[in-house]
Amino acid sequence: MRIALLGGTGDIGEGLALRWAYDTDHEVIVGSRDPEKARAKAEEYETELDSRGVDRKVTGFTNEMAADRADVVVLAVPAYHLVDTIESVADKLDDCILVTPAVGMKRDDDGFHYNRPKAGSVAALAAGAAPDGIPVVGAFHNLAAGKLANLDATFEWDTFVFGDDADAKSIVVTLAGEIEGLRALDVGGIANAAEVEALTPLLINVAANNDGLHDLGIHIE
Amino acid sequence: MRIALLGGTGDIGEGLALRWAYDTDHEVIVGSRDPEKARAKAEEYETELDSRGVDRKVTGFTNEMAADRADVVVLAVPAYHLVDTIESVADKLDDCILVTPAVGMKRDDDGFHYNRPKAGSVAALAAGAAPDGIPVVGAFHNLAAGKLANLDATFEWDTFVFGDDADAKSIVVTLAGEIEGLRALDVGGIANAAEVEALTPLLINVAANNDGLHDLGIHIE
Repeated sequence: MRIALLGGTGDIGEGLALRWAYDTDHEVIVGSRDPEKARAKAEEYETELDSRGVDRKVTGFTNEMAADRADVVVLAVPAYHLVDTIESVADKLDDCILVTPAVGMKRDDDGFHYNRPKAGSVAALAAGAAPDGIPVVGAFHNLAAGKLANLDATFEWDTFVFGDDADAKSIVVTLAGEIEGLRALDVGGIANAAEVEALTPLLINVAANNDGLHDLGIHIE
Repeated sequence: MRIALLGGTGDIGEGLALRWAYDTDHEVIVGSRDPEKARAKAEEYETELDSRGVDRKVTGFTNEMAADRADVVVLAVPAYHLVDTIESVADKLDDCILVTPAVGMKRDDDGFHYNRPKAGSVAALAAGAAPDGIPVVGAFHNLAAGKLANLDATFEWDTFVFGDDADAKSIVVTLAGEIEGLRALDVGGIANAAEVEALTPLLINVAANNDGLHDLGIHIE
């Protein structure tokens, strides 16, 4: 499968790119608004994989060209760039799945809070912006990006996957579960997105208030 | 310490009563609107503990009398009874801590959702209803009640504790951590309550959509 990570040069995009390239045979495509940056990061990921004895081709393109080449397009961009990123690649999204890990947060003196969009969730915003017939699936919201991107690090985390298209959701559940240490849990449709997205500020508040806890993920048991 | 569980005859109240009586030396007081029911349940808990070789006195009273006898009052009642329960015991709450594990939920065809009160959270509602000077602490929201009440069951769960009174919060963190298998994580003030309360519908949606997962709790790592 060909997976494009739009905004794949940093944060959660970097971690997912490295893990899929390291743990699976899927083709990994890094997207960025700046194609030079995308190519440089793709090379950096190749070098990192090579240093671990994994000879993988990772390519870098503009977001548009990356989306054009992919079966699954992960929108690894901040929530406030989600809609414009979808719009910028909309006419390249033919027969593919959009995946959103984005979370809207606000911060005040008390800590981080979920900033729920009027649409009901960030995923609902994405679904509203997606071209007709292109399914949107939510996943990978609650993973510590730094730990995910460090291939020396191991974890036993769950990721919550939701979407209104059962086939698309099933593909993302499979892709998520192929990352070592990650378990994908189906939580229903996009109507159930807000509770998943709200978890990320909670994890940040846990890290802020408890010594020795950082780079956190969740495990349900 | 004397702990009263208002609504301690069922659900999360039963689990907390049994666990504190089994794992600690704190005095456990069961409260109910119906004193007969409270006494019957207290006896039932004593019998259960006795069958495991633990000789503990558990008492049962009206909510009012239970609150009057306690240092820590846990409001183990549904969210829609939280405010009237606080009001019914308000003049007995002298120099004690109120603890709320309540979560507001609504259900539709998609699953369970967090039903956020206009006050911002269920805990904020409780804080608004509490008498002046009586601190409110949130804890024990995300524990599977059935498993908690089954003393044969073991778990490794986290509970998120929040409150605006640091001393009160610290006491609840300690009480929670004394339950075997439970780790208390401080998540700041009541302003951070909504993200904790929203976790419970997510756990229910996980159980509804994934075979073999039920009686769920959370572990952060």
